[in-house]
Amino acid sequence: MNDHRDAEASRLTIDYRNAMAAAVGPGHGVTDAMLDEMAPVVAEQHARLGAEHAAGGQRWMDLPSDTALVTEIETFAAEVRDRYENFILVGIGGSSLGAIATVQALTNPFRNVLPSETRGGPRFFVLDNPDPEKVAATLETVDLSNTLVNVVTKSGQTAETMANFLAVRQALEAAVGPERARQQIVATTDPAEGLLRALADQEGYRTFPVPPGVDGRMTVLSAVGMLPAAICGCDIGGLLAGARAMRARATTADVRQNPAYLLAALCILADTRLDKSILVTVPYADALFGLSDWFRQLWAESLGKRLSLDNEVVYAGQTPIKALGAIDQHSQIQLYTEGPNDKLISLIAVENYRAEVAIEDVPDGIPELDYLRGAELGRLLQREQLATAWALTEAQRPNFTIGVPTVDAAILGELFYLYELQTVMGGALLNVNPFGQPGVEAGKNATYALMGRDGYETLREELLAATGTESQYRLSSG
Amino acid sequence: MNDHRDAEASRLTIDYRNAMAAAVGPGHGVTDAMLDEMAPVVAEQHARLGAEHAAGGQRWMDLPSDTALVTEIETFAAEVRDRYENFILVGIGGSSLGAIATVQALTNPFRNVLPSETRGGPRFFVLDNPDPEKVAATLETVDLSNTLVNVVTKSGQTAETMANFLAVRQALEAAVGPERARQQIVATTDPAEGLLRALADQEGYRTFPVPPGVDGRMTVLSAVGMLPAAICGCDIGGLLAGARAMRARATTADVRQNPAYLLAALCILADTRLDKSILVTVPYADALFGLSDWFRQLWAESLGKRLSLDNEVVYAGQTPIKALGAIDQHSQIQLYTEGPNDKLISLIAVENYRAEVAIEDVPDGIPELDYLRGAELGRLLQREQLATAWALTEAQRPNFTIGVPTVDAAILGELFYLYELQTVMGGALLNVNPFGQPGVEAGKNATYALMGRDGYETLREELLAATGTESQYRLSSG
Repeated sequence: MNDHRDAEASRLTIDYRNAMAAAVGPGHGVTDAMLDEMAPVVAEQHARLGAEHAAGGQRWMDLPSDTALVTEIETFAAEVRDRYENFILVGIGGSSLGAIATVQALTNPFRNVLPSETRGGPRFFVLDNPDPEKVAATLETVDLSNTLVNVVTKSGQTAETMANFLAVRQALEAAVGPERARQQIVATTDPAEGLLRALADQEGYRTFPVPPGVDGRMTVLSAVGMLPAAICGCDIGGLLAGARAMRARATTADVRQNPAYLLAALCILADTRLDKSILVTVPYADALFGLSDWFRQLWAESLGKRLSLDNEVVYAGQTPIKALGAIDQHSQIQLYTEGPNDKLISLIAVENYRAEVAIEDVPDGIPELDYLRGAELGRLLQREQLATAWALTEAQRPNFTIGVPTVDAAILGELFYLYELQTVMGGALLNVNPFGQPGVEAGKNATYALMGRDGYETLREELLAATGTESQYRLSSG
Repeated sequence: MNDHRDAEASRLTIDYRNAMAAAVGPGHGVTDAMLDEMAPVVAEQHARLGAEHAAGGQRWMDLPSDTALVTEIETFAAEVRDRYENFILVGIGGSSLGAIATVQALTNPFRNVLPSETRGGPRFFVLDNPDPEKVAATLETVDLSNTLVNVVTKSGQTAETMANFLAVRQALEAAVGPERARQQIVATTDPAEGLLRALADQEGYRTFPVPPGVDGRMTVLSAVGMLPAAICGCDIGGLLAGARAMRARATTADVRQNPAYLLAALCILADTRLDKSILVTVPYADALFGLSDWFRQLWAESLGKRLSLDNEVVYAGQTPIKALGAIDQHSQIQLYTEGPNDKLISLIAVENYRAEVAIEDVPDGIPELDYLRGAELGRLLQREQLATAWALTEAQRPNFTIGVPTVDAAILGELFYLYELQTVMGGALLNVNPFGQPGVEAGKNATYALMGRDGYETLREELLAATGTESQYRLSSG
């Protein structure tokens, strides 16, 4: 499956001159001395990661090699792709962001509007939020007799996903009966454990595995991300081949040569040495906005950690922001250039768009518009990106540009793997464990308590006392 | 036109107990003493705003009163709503974010997927970014002979909007000929000046006014936001009535009673006295995500300003983040609770969703799922919001909750006006001019220069020299 692509080299470039002190000033840019200082730490952590991987850890690194899984998924996808008019993914966070990013990058943005003849695969709906308005509208819009459902949760504990799934399941049973409903459901879950595994076994759903030992936010290159992508017609073989190309390129321990380590070093140095507590990702392509949202989860959940250093509590983590060029030039750039100098800005530039639109016809009589005669939208967008990088640099705002030749499956695979390795190295440089998310347990438990789940009675009492409506700090409408 | 609604009172509530020091600790919460200290400043600035308005300034405050415009827009919208299958809005930033927020809040999220019989008005497409892939896909998806286009730019200088518009215009002319094309174009622009005004007059487009003296980001309650909203079937009379209700409520100078001034004081105190440099807005409703994006522009462009105070340069402005509950509990809450305590978090709670989905059928044999039996998705989402507010507070992260009874036109109008007044008062408290966006000029000029526009030759030379490809800080794919 696309193994020939392994012969291809990584095609991604990084231009970080505008992140250096020489460009934006010593208080705001990274220096060569800082990179020199970090080089041995990076090399040491690189060796540690390699040793852990050799000992059976860091299993996310193996996902790009699983071409047998690609075959299995593609076989299944080929069976269902033209059989169903609608496809509903039920999952939240790491169980949906990767699939959304992939489908958005690689398929027509109007796939759900297009007639089935020109679409290529089913319409794609995501039930992530348990928003009753959205869920009700989805169930009213799709013909359930013609709908495949993929529910994704490793543990089956996720309240939002299980609630949404049970709502879809009962609607499906009402529409087609329990027997057929079971055939229209595919579960992606732990191969052996958990509530969804138990339910899938009990009901006889077709299942795909969530890989054991991999955090949810690192599963885009497993069945979690690839099954929905393949059903929507994405080239998942190409995705994994791209990830392998980046993996092969990122084997060097040299912080200046390894793209993932370079980005990790720039971001962590900017955060910890230069007070750039915010990391903005600005792709100049609508197709990559979902990638920016996927990365936002990865960076926040992995590095946003409380830790003890020298008996002191430290709250680590840069705050990621998803943005979109050129749109956010008309929303955020005023703040980014004249507000607090607290951001590192990552631009993503696209060399060749998959379509181009040329302006041939500029009306006479408005000479100020003549500069658009013969202009192409893609060229305009590229120049906006260059102009923004320049203007940020002039204002001493550190920034760097990731360059991609075009948006395709392989480059998306490169980006996924790049960001994952960058994040794991970022954790190492920050001294935090990039895996797990201990900080969300309190909120999850509080939700269970308020929902009246068995075993949470004490917390429920505490919560009800704390969230009563009487307070002098409440401005009512009365 | 819906004037009876003026009798209605504002229905929005604010619960800010979790933003107070008593709840989250003295280093992280606002104190009553801080509010007391700010009260006279707020009262003074309230008087100044009133005086400026009386003298003909602060014209954005008048927009909710223009019921004649509502009538004019509704008459036009009624003419075109059922005549066209597709509606394309061409505009960026303040010329599109308000319309997107309104249509998203008040119409079916799947309007473009639904057949025309059940939709109510045309399908809605926005060309904001000059992304050639998106523009080409839009032009391929719609039947141009059955498409109305609304181009929105006050000056007609905006490169992205004019480029996108010229691309759509030539496609329209090719499809239906120049005569009919002109009838399918509506321009919202300055009543007297600018390039789009000149073009509209020359070609004979129907036009609607961008109100003079109002910044683009404050025009949602003018034809800029209301024309697209009305064409898509939104109740714009209700929108303005809600804005008037908030305007009437917000006439008090009392920082503790005026919702806009209270929020301004909380945000500015958190930013300047408590180091909460980030303001996160988290609606618990998919329908309000566009509102969060609209507010993100308003807050960033208005307050992100460089200024001189006591001969020192100050870079002002809190960084706004758009988020969505409960989705971002699975993406950002780990960082928000265990990362740096540098955020003020604004939750938006909805009392009654416009649809509810109840879970009747929970499979036997999985007792851990029994707590979902009889659960309703809307109730779940409300409890997630309460649980998150509680968990943030436990982690000493300041937060407040804006409560809305339901998402409808009037409450959306309330929210628009609330946030506008909050922002203008925020500027006053920060000592910055909330109008204008001087910081984006450099980037705009750089784009013109790179596009070869007359008069920008010197800048072009400078730019080409600065952005050459030779640099040791470039990691290539070779």
